[in-house]
Amino acid sequence: MNGAQALIRTLVGAGVDVCFANPGTSEMQFVAALDTVPSMRAILALFEGVATGAADGYARVAGRPAATLLHLGPGLGNGLANLHNARRAHSPVVNLVGDHATYHKKYDAPLESDIEAVAASLGWVRRSDSPAEVGADAARTVAAAQEPPGGVATLILPADVAWGDGGRAASPVPARVPRQVPETAVKSVAAILRTGEPTALLIGGAACQERGLRAVNRIATATGLKPFMETFPARIQRGAGLPAVERLAYHAEHVAYQLEGTTHVIVAGTKPPVSFFAYPGRASDLVPAGAQVHILAELGGDVVAALESLADEVAPGTLPVLQQARRSPLPRGPLTPRNWVEVIGALLPDGAIVSDESVTSGLLLPAATAGAPRHDVLPLTGGAIGQGLPVAVGAAVAAPDRPVIALQADGSAIYTISALWTMARENLDVTTILLNNRSYAILRTELQRVGAGRSGPKADELLDLSRPDLDFTKIAEGMGVPATRARTAEELAGQFSRAVAEPGPHLIEVILE
Amino acid sequence: MNGAQALIRTLVGAGVDVCFANPGTSEMQFVAALDTVPSMRAILALFEGVATGAADGYARVAGRPAATLLHLGPGLGNGLANLHNARRAHSPVVNLVGDHATYHKKYDAPLESDIEAVAASLGWVRRSDSPAEVGADAARTVAAAQEPPGGVATLILPADVAWGDGGRAASPVPARVPRQVPETAVKSVAAILRTGEPTALLIGGAACQERGLRAVNRIATATGLKPFMETFPARIQRGAGLPAVERLAYHAEHVAYQLEGTTHVIVAGTKPPVSFFAYPGRASDLVPAGAQVHILAELGGDVVAALESLADEVAPGTLPVLQQARRSPLPRGPLTPRNWVEVIGALLPDGAIVSDESVTSGLLLPAATAGAPRHDVLPLTGGAIGQGLPVAVGAAVAAPDRPVIALQADGSAIYTISALWTMARENLDVTTILLNNRSYAILRTELQRVGAGRSGPKADELLDLSRPDLDFTKIAEGMGVPATRARTAEELAGQFSRAVAEPGPHLIEVILE
Repeated sequence: MNGAQALIRTLVGAGVDVCFANPGTSEMQFVAALDTVPSMRAILALFEGVATGAADGYARVAGRPAATLLHLGPGLGNGLANLHNARRAHSPVVNLVGDHATYHKKYDAPLESDIEAVAASLGWVRRSDSPAEVGADAARTVAAAQEPPGGVATLILPADVAWGDGGRAASPVPARVPRQVPETAVKSVAAILRTGEPTALLIGGAACQERGLRAVNRIATATGLKPFMETFPARIQRGAGLPAVERLAYHAEHVAYQLEGTTHVIVAGTKPPVSFFAYPGRASDLVPAGAQVHILAELGGDVVAALESLADEVAPGTLPVLQQARRSPLPRGPLTPRNWVEVIGALLPDGAIVSDESVTSGLLLPAATAGAPRHDVLPLTGGAIGQGLPVAVGAAVAAPDRPVIALQADGSAIYTISALWTMARENLDVTTILLNNRSYAILRTELQRVGAGRSGPKADELLDLSRPDLDFTKIAEGMGVPATRARTAEELAGQFSRAVAEPGPHLIEVILE
Repeated sequence: MNGAQALIRTLVGAGVDVCFANPGTSEMQFVAALDTVPSMRAILALFEGVATGAADGYARVAGRPAATLLHLGPGLGNGLANLHNARRAHSPVVNLVGDHATYHKKYDAPLESDIEAVAASLGWVRRSDSPAEVGADAARTVAAAQEPPGGVATLILPADVAWGDGGRAASPVPARVPRQVPETAVKSVAAILRTGEPTALLIGGAACQERGLRAVNRIATATGLKPFMETFPARIQRGAGLPAVERLAYHAEHVAYQLEGTTHVIVAGTKPPVSFFAYPGRASDLVPAGAQVHILAELGGDVVAALESLADEVAPGTLPVLQQARRSPLPRGPLTPRNWVEVIGALLPDGAIVSDESVTSGLLLPAATAGAPRHDVLPLTGGAIGQGLPVAVGAAVAAPDRPVIALQADGSAIYTISALWTMARENLDVTTILLNNRSYAILRTELQRVGAGRSGPKADELLDLSRPDLDFTKIAEGMGVPATRARTAEELAGQFSRAVAEPGPHLIEVILE
């Protein structure tokens, strides 16, 4: 058995049986070894950012890591933005980066670069030194990725470690479970709630799924506490039959409004609220002045169990209030940022997974889909745009029986547009709603917010995506995905219904007025 | 004057008046300041790899740096692969990376990451701390980028340094010139040549342009020395009226053939030859066994002056032998990897700049274009694919009066495909020949070369770009570039002639049999 075979067998043994790959020469032995381990599925991406974003999306839905396969330092570079998002999502990702043979590195061949330095910016890194060790290294990498709350763990695989003989598959290293939250922390928060003082609860991570939401809603119902989700959780469960919890807003002034009058901020499974960006004259720390912060559960702690304990403590007999089923009525006429979301709200299929990178076009989405059938939302976590389509790929691989809906802004779509090709190759059931407003709309707002005043023609040019207009139907068809264009709500409704009903990928370009 | 204005004025004062930008919120003040400095030209890229590759192409043609503008760590990540290529090309690049405000970093907001660590993998890095210093920091960055032999210099620009008052533009820091090569090195190499022993000369960097080539050819003509260019120089001048110098091959066994029987290898402006990748049982060091290596000029040394001194020493009365004008005859019939290059050879316009990422499809290109009118070739330098189209963008901006021809393989085109949009927006005179063989053809060869044996169906799937076929005419049209498809040599000849005759960008998808 060579090193590559030992590596792949170890991964499969540890439950990692999907690999999103964009290989090169130094990874050819890994590629060849795939045919010797039938249960490893390899999926080709045409750009590394698609592979890394797909691994993130897969982890968010499957709850366990996929592997990537990247080609040396430049491949890692191309994958870095979506690995950053995965890091912020606390998604477990086994990030495999091929490298030159061990003895070749000293020659500083053209593709040589400092892979460790770049990978270390993401978290845990190991370089495998020999075929005999690569199995054990892989088992440690899988465990590192799953170390609560989850993260990116990189294994650097030199070519000769892959092709050398003497490989040994290793048994899985048991992954640690989330740390139990001490009963004292629960009691202490319960005492605060019993004072009746105005209190907000900010939840994140696993708390944004059903069990956590039910506990939070019981607590809020019984005590009057105001619950919020962190602005960008990795995965939100919502819709009819689940308790609805508002997300903290993106802009600092809206957060100030949400938290106004609060004297206690309880934080569970996330960090205290901070502004996404700094703006002149505005605070970065969004905890209201004078309010006290209390940590119920740190990142990596068992936030769901802590919330359930708290609910049993302060709301023993209380049942959660569940969102009623309620569909938006279908709107009519030309599509705008206000009405396209209502089409989605009216027609979202049951059990959908929504990869949401709709950015400014999606501001009204949460309201429009609140009463839709139960669904999962996978938001942009780290602010590195170009996440939406790759995450949709990974989600569809993880949940082949569920419809995946990618809500995708135009500007950010381009970074990883070849995700469409992978959707076509794998016949993934992804419906992409491409929101074309022909601009970096968010930056028009941000230009004002940083105090830059009125923009001149050169600044305007850098925020404008027309001249020429991007034609996403042609781009999608060029990548093998059937595409249509909608300019009215009626057109979008018809096209969306058909796309969802038909297996395989579709793209609908929504031209926003 | 705020920091952003001071920065831009300093750049313009130091001769950096083009900025390839993909900005975000933290760069908005820089964007706003562009309208206050009329002579700075800003060009929007829809992906950072386009911006960084364009800065590389610009530097190779203009001989001076352009600036980039990237959005925090993830933007740097997306730009990293083509910055790696620029580093290997020794292209001067002023790499501007926006960051959070200085006081905001401690909050670990979602886009926070270790920018320094990633940028340091490329070379020189500075973080500007105040509006008062950013001008001086920028002047030092420009000088660092131009430090011989040239490289990537990164300036990290916190948002509050950009928006803060008290900015002062700084005078340029004089850039150092290449180090003079000591006369003793020249004499010592001359003495070796006079022994008459079999000697090879390997040149790189500036030596691959006219003055260097003329000196090299005189030396070879007078002494019988075998001259070679490094495999991937940043810029080659060639064609009718210039001396032709063979490039060292990509594969080790071909290099062994080229250098066979050599007892001395003289190296000038590059490094001794090494294999691009390691292969089982093959040497990494490509200097023939028993041959001695002599360094005439180190990287960063004045290699052209050294070669001219050497020519005056060993070939005082010798004139260079120049390539005769000779056009390939136009081939006929279906297009193959053998005949498409002849169409280019037959029709390459005078003074063309060729951005060459044709990879396996272009193996016969050098022979087919050897006697074409004088032209420049910009090869892939660092092995990070996705360079060709962005480099063509930068070349066309640097030389608006010259026709730019991008010879682009299909697999590598996808990484930075939105370069086409920037070509359309800026109406750049770039003709892209997109060579579609529906596979990562180079990896089919490499799979065998690493000793992986016969590939199985899963391995084959990872090297195959069909299922679905990429339709590059649709993708190009979707990005605003007129596109046609050629299946025969006659079609390619007609479409290429028309594309070159007409201003603005065109793409011709060549379907290779």
